[in-house]
Amino acid sequence: MVEFNKKIKERFSIRKFKSDNIPDELVKEILENARWAPSGLNNQPWKFVIIKDSQIKEEVASQTHYSQIISNAPLCIAVFYDKDVGYNYVKDVQAIGAAIQNMLLAIHNLNLGGVWLGEILNKRQEVERILNVPESFELMAVVALGYSTEKKAKRSRKSLSELVYLNKYDHKWIVSD
Amino acid sequence: MVEFNKKIKERFSIRKFKSDNIPDELVKEILENARWAPSGLNNQPWKFVIIKDSQIKEEVASQTHYSQIISNAPLCIAVFYDKDVGYNYVKDVQAIGAAIQNMLLAIHNLNLGGVWLGEILNKRQEVERILNVPESFELMAVVALGYSTEKKAKRSRKSLSELVYLNKYDHKWIVSD
Repeated sequence: MVEFNKKIKERFSIRKFKSDNIPDELVKEILENARWAPSGLNNQPWKFVIIKDSQIKEEVASQTHYSQIISNAPLCIAVFYDKDVGYNYVKDVQAIGAAIQNMLLAIHNLNLGGVWLGEILNKRQEVERILNVPESFELMAVVALGYSTEKKAKRSRKSLSELVYLNKYDHKWIVSD
Repeated sequence: MVEFNKKIKERFSIRKFKSDNIPDELVKEILENARWAPSGLNNQPWKFVIIKDSQIKEEVASQTHYSQIISNAPLCIAVFYDKDVGYNYVKDVQAIGAAIQNMLLAIHNLNLGGVWLGEILNKRQEVERILNVPESFELMAVVALGYSTEKKAKRSRKSLSELVYLNKYDHKWIVSD
């Protein structure tokens, strides 16, 4: 129980990978976790394109300032919002955030490393064209993953006292550390 | 390792609760998990209002068709997007989805039950007024939680074959079950 929450709290982004390929069985496990994320009306508005082909991966890499991360990763997963099954943009985008988080947790838990790339959304239409997705697909993120060469990371977060209020905004929630 | 991913996949929404209060220590643990979610530029655009006061809880409950769930829960957590620390609406909303998912996973893992309420966003300005939050706060969701009286739920998800493509949209990803 403690261990599970520890896993959630200790997860960090990995941006450098070994060249080893990831077995399909693990890719499947990661996507299984994404698939079970919650969504409004259970509409599951997500779609995924696994990018293994190195030429296509390079084309996608060229659309971001972080091209080295994508080039270096043995595998990427492009995550899309499928507007054809969407019902509310804000709630659907939240659900996709939940699905991506499930993927990252599964990656960490499988002793792989991964990173959620968002800057590439500046070129989302180019990526959508490269991957030949239908008009209804909107790129939400690219997750790069692989076996990690990094051991730890500097991480920081705001304290709960900066984030949490009790009953109304007028009262900060004070809890002992 | 298997156990961790199983926890992610087995989690389900709980909408009926015992009257028992949740110790602050557990509430803190849930929010700790939210706090460690990833966000673009690590901007952590989330804020939380814990609602325990029964009068305020009733006022919030009256803003949704699912008022019974909120009334019945010993505690709710309203999740806000703080636009003052945001940098990109889509990425910030995804990050908040990730933080909410971390909360739901922590709730499940602590043997509590919870549900992500979104319909209340139809009355988000009323909720924002009740909780007296600043102009910069936009309601994203209310999570109702408590000790569960439910044991299991009917759950369904689309299969991976309906969701996943390889390299380009033209190729479905075929993986054995």
